[in-house]
Amino acid sequence: MRLPLLAAACCALLACAARPQCAEAAKARHFKWEISNMFWSPDCEEKVVIGINGQFPGPTIRARAGDTIHVELKNALHTEGVVIHWHGIRQIGTPWMDGTAAISQCAINPEETFTYRFVVDKPGTYFYHGHYGMQRAAGLYGSLIVDVAEGEEEPFKYDGELNLLLSDWYHESIHTQMVALSSKPFRWIGEPQSLLINGRGQFNCSMAAAHTPGATQCAAVNRQCAPVILLVQPNKTYRLRVASTTSLASLNLAVGNHKLTVVEADGNYVDPFAVDDIDLYSGDSYSVLLTADQDPSSNYWVSVGVRGRLPKTAPALAVLNYRPNAASKLPALAPPATPAWNDYGHSKAFTYRIRARAGTPPPPATADRRIELLNTQNQMDGHVKWSINNVSMVLPATPYLGSLKLGLKNTLTAAPPPETFSRGYDVTLPPANPNTTVGGNVYVLAHNATVDVVLQNANALARNVSEVHPWHLHGHDFWVLGYGEGPYRGDASDEARLNLRDPPLRNTAVIFPYGWTAIRFVADNPGVWAFHCHIEPHLHMGMGVVFAEAVDRVGKVPKEAVSCGATASALMNGDHL
Amino acid sequence: MRLPLLAAACCALLACAARPQCAEAAKARHFKWEISNMFWSPDCEEKVVIGINGQFPGPTIRARAGDTIHVELKNALHTEGVVIHWHGIRQIGTPWMDGTAAISQCAINPEETFTYRFVVDKPGTYFYHGHYGMQRAAGLYGSLIVDVAEGEEEPFKYDGELNLLLSDWYHESIHTQMVALSSKPFRWIGEPQSLLINGRGQFNCSMAAAHTPGATQCAAVNRQCAPVILLVQPNKTYRLRVASTTSLASLNLAVGNHKLTVVEADGNYVDPFAVDDIDLYSGDSYSVLLTADQDPSSNYWVSVGVRGRLPKTAPALAVLNYRPNAASKLPALAPPATPAWNDYGHSKAFTYRIRARAGTPPPPATADRRIELLNTQNQMDGHVKWSINNVSMVLPATPYLGSLKLGLKNTLTAAPPPETFSRGYDVTLPPANPNTTVGGNVYVLAHNATVDVVLQNANALARNVSEVHPWHLHGHDFWVLGYGEGPYRGDASDEARLNLRDPPLRNTAVIFPYGWTAIRFVADNPGVWAFHCHIEPHLHMGMGVVFAEAVDRVGKVPKEAVSCGATASALMNGDHL
Repeated sequence: MRLPLLAAACCALLACAARPQCAEAAKARHFKWEISNMFWSPDCEEKVVIGINGQFPGPTIRARAGDTIHVELKNALHTEGVVIHWHGIRQIGTPWMDGTAAISQCAINPEETFTYRFVVDKPGTYFYHGHYGMQRAAGLYGSLIVDVAEGEEEPFKYDGELNLLLSDWYHESIHTQMVALSSKPFRWIGEPQSLLINGRGQFNCSMAAAHTPGATQCAAVNRQCAPVILLVQPNKTYRLRVASTTSLASLNLAVGNHKLTVVEADGNYVDPFAVDDIDLYSGDSYSVLLTADQDPSSNYWVSVGVRGRLPKTAPALAVLNYRPNAASKLPALAPPATPAWNDYGHSKAFTYRIRARAGTPPPPATADRRIELLNTQNQMDGHVKWSINNVSMVLPATPYLGSLKLGLKNTLTAAPPPETFSRGYDVTLPPANPNTTVGGNVYVLAHNATVDVVLQNANALARNVSEVHPWHLHGHDFWVLGYGEGPYRGDASDEARLNLRDPPLRNTAVIFPYGWTAIRFVADNPGVWAFHCHIEPHLHMGMGVVFAEAVDRVGKVPKEAVSCGATASALMNGDHL
Repeated sequence: MRLPLLAAACCALLACAARPQCAEAAKARHFKWEISNMFWSPDCEEKVVIGINGQFPGPTIRARAGDTIHVELKNALHTEGVVIHWHGIRQIGTPWMDGTAAISQCAINPEETFTYRFVVDKPGTYFYHGHYGMQRAAGLYGSLIVDVAEGEEEPFKYDGELNLLLSDWYHESIHTQMVALSSKPFRWIGEPQSLLINGRGQFNCSMAAAHTPGATQCAAVNRQCAPVILLVQPNKTYRLRVASTTSLASLNLAVGNHKLTVVEADGNYVDPFAVDDIDLYSGDSYSVLLTADQDPSSNYWVSVGVRGRLPKTAPALAVLNYRPNAASKLPALAPPATPAWNDYGHSKAFTYRIRARAGTPPPPATADRRIELLNTQNQMDGHVKWSINNVSMVLPATPYLGSLKLGLKNTLTAAPPPETFSRGYDVTLPPANPNTTVGGNVYVLAHNATVDVVLQNANALARNVSEVHPWHLHGHDFWVLGYGEGPYRGDASDEARLNLRDPPLRNTAVIFPYGWTAIRFVADNPGVWAFHCHIEPHLHMGMGVVFAEAVDRVGKVPKEAVSCGATASALMNGDHL
């Protein structure tokens, strides 16, 4: 036991040493988790969920920047592998701890224990979740909150914190969902039955029925689906840490009568701005400041509604409970109405307002490489797929990090995936040729190259349909340089839309219907990193690519991370990582 | 490709060489399987089942004695491992091909391919099934039929064959079932919704409604749940190959107006005897001869009903279709009534009549070791378990075959499991101390030792309840020496009940409520072999033991069979199998 602890303390010291301003040694924080299926009633309807230590959602991890997190994870599922991805943590120098099955590590087998060890180098609002099959949608997630290092201060003031981890919820099991999405003919899983706040929601009833003609008041409910109560003291200011780990839904959050000042996005400070409501796409996180400056004799509703898809799911509600009012005192005002689902103007206005806070490192002025990724919905042998430059991603049996590090043959398909798409492609119509193929979609990136990626949205298989896709990058933050409507042409007009002055750093960026989004990052973190639509069924249907970044510079990959498939065979035959 | 084929041909020739009477070289038979979840309607209600190559049940394997079977199996499940056990095949010299997760091999990970290669050395009626979690109950099974070697003859005559693979069916997913059985408080999964014949049944309606007041006639059904039609020509004799792969139910099969002559049990010939109906416990297989000697103007019902538990599941029906009658011609007579569920006298009479056919090798006259296994239902920390000598079996992350072969530490718990139980234990009452523990239950057997095992049944946790348990042994047939009522004492009276003259060879033997069953086998097949109750929820609840048999004499275990857990680590660190 002594050696790992010493090693951890050593790492923490090194992390601290790299931050001359840090006042004392960072800590090693130890967690012991057991992951298992269990019965739970997130929205008062019981189903099997994946829990951690018998809890849903999983326990919140709280640490300070520079700390080393140790999670000793036992897989107590009966027949399923599992991994945990630490969403927003860049895993600098530890790409094998990224928790992405088939990319950064082998799934942890039932009854096996794997210990995640990584430094949380940057304060911010993060979360963690399963990254194997659609296990995130089975409830395998929780919050990960990193405070500034001891002795440092946030660049804004607040009196207290409120943590809101948002998700959506299906009554059908993820196994059935995965079979449906993979079936021929294709079966769409439909809209979620409920929205959850901190894992709690109400299906088929409304806590605010008094405000909603025809709605049924929720009966007394069990603890697992009890409404979330957010306690505030009048005139104090609170930091709401809000993150979305939805399977499908894009969300909007509003608090009755209260303004929200956005100060952080995806673990990066932003130039503060005040709004009535915020959009959250799956994979996003924000900190917003709220001052309890309204009539303190009342409580207020917090509403979470669906954006971007015709909503068939009732809003989730929580109560902003002004002390000393009773938590059970129903707000006098109706819940705030979140914007119309298809009011993309509202969404774009919010998204475009997000700028980096002064002091954020600016992007390099030019890129070394530009990769243009056309997002289309396609067919393959009667299956429905999402494709990138007409290749739908399938993941291998052996994680890329191991197989590329060992230089195993056949890891990469013969031809690299396309770097661009035809300028003649009409993004306003269903694909002229709907047929697609499958592939690894592995882009090899040179060390320290500055890479631009343009994500191009398009019409889906049905006419007049183009969906929102939030793309999430592992291993990096990226600068969001700009957005455009219609096809990206890379001409002077498109270039003029790029913001090189104060683009926000994010790990997730949305593409709006029929539009494009341009991002830039520096390939300075050797590893193999997923870049994918964060919508769980879309990823299942192939909507992603892989960046293999300077794999020759990756440090010693622990054998236990790649002890499966072709890497296990090679290592058993004497190869060395 | 050439080398494995040559090697296979070579093996086949060797197998043939060992059988001087065989007329020509045995064959290598190649199969390519993909295992995936899919929607299917076995009893006209759709659910997710595990299929092979898009079929349910899996494809029938048909071979001749001495052939080598090659099954190249790709796991196309999304997040679950898989293995296939070849039930009744002894795997002489190939214990790593037994397909028992955590015992003989690592579960095959998603997207991985594993090739099973083994000789079917003995003609008989077998089947195969999943042996990981409760995957058998998800539909992962099929028939495996081995004919006599070319030029040889069965010791009985028949004109045709009819194959009946029997199972039971739950509408709840196996994931939910496993969570229920593992939950605190315990949730029993209840009785199956349907019985299936060759994977087809009818839920909530009866094909024979005309004979059953109040029953609803089944509507036109889809192909997946269409009734099974067994075609016969008048006055011809048929070999019915009947096997039960039920999750829970014990069954009885009867054919209206027809006698059945039992000629084979579990791949071993028995002294022929005629009965009106046969019992099948999960894991059993029989061949029975039926002569179509009844009024040929009529068709007849084949009934399959539940034994040993208060039946809440309707009988399964098939039609014995005398040519040239239309298959749709409903039988004139009502379906034969299978015996009352609790008529244990009837069951015992059938079971006790099974004797070895003349020429079957007799057991050694004495045993070198006797292991007495008390079967009890217990509690542990609020969970309900089945225990053997008060230890409930839990399986490790690393398969025993690899860890024992490599001599890895900590594979076996410090103390060997108990060889016997207290003579004072009162089998007629619930356990005085219901608390149990968990353990590996590994019994180490010396090479060529003759081993007697006495299985002792007892009262479960509830008063006046003692259930039937069919115990199945991997890697061996055993002689069933005898049965007794009440507690086994090993005294002269018990000894007198043992049959050393013509005990049948089986791989599955039942213990009746409150009774005991004695079996004998010779530990002449080095390997690690499961011995367990074949009822899927009972095994999940710990009702099994493991025989580690002369592991030092096991041949070279293929690395790919044990490429997980502690064996993978050891092999990656330079150990050799």
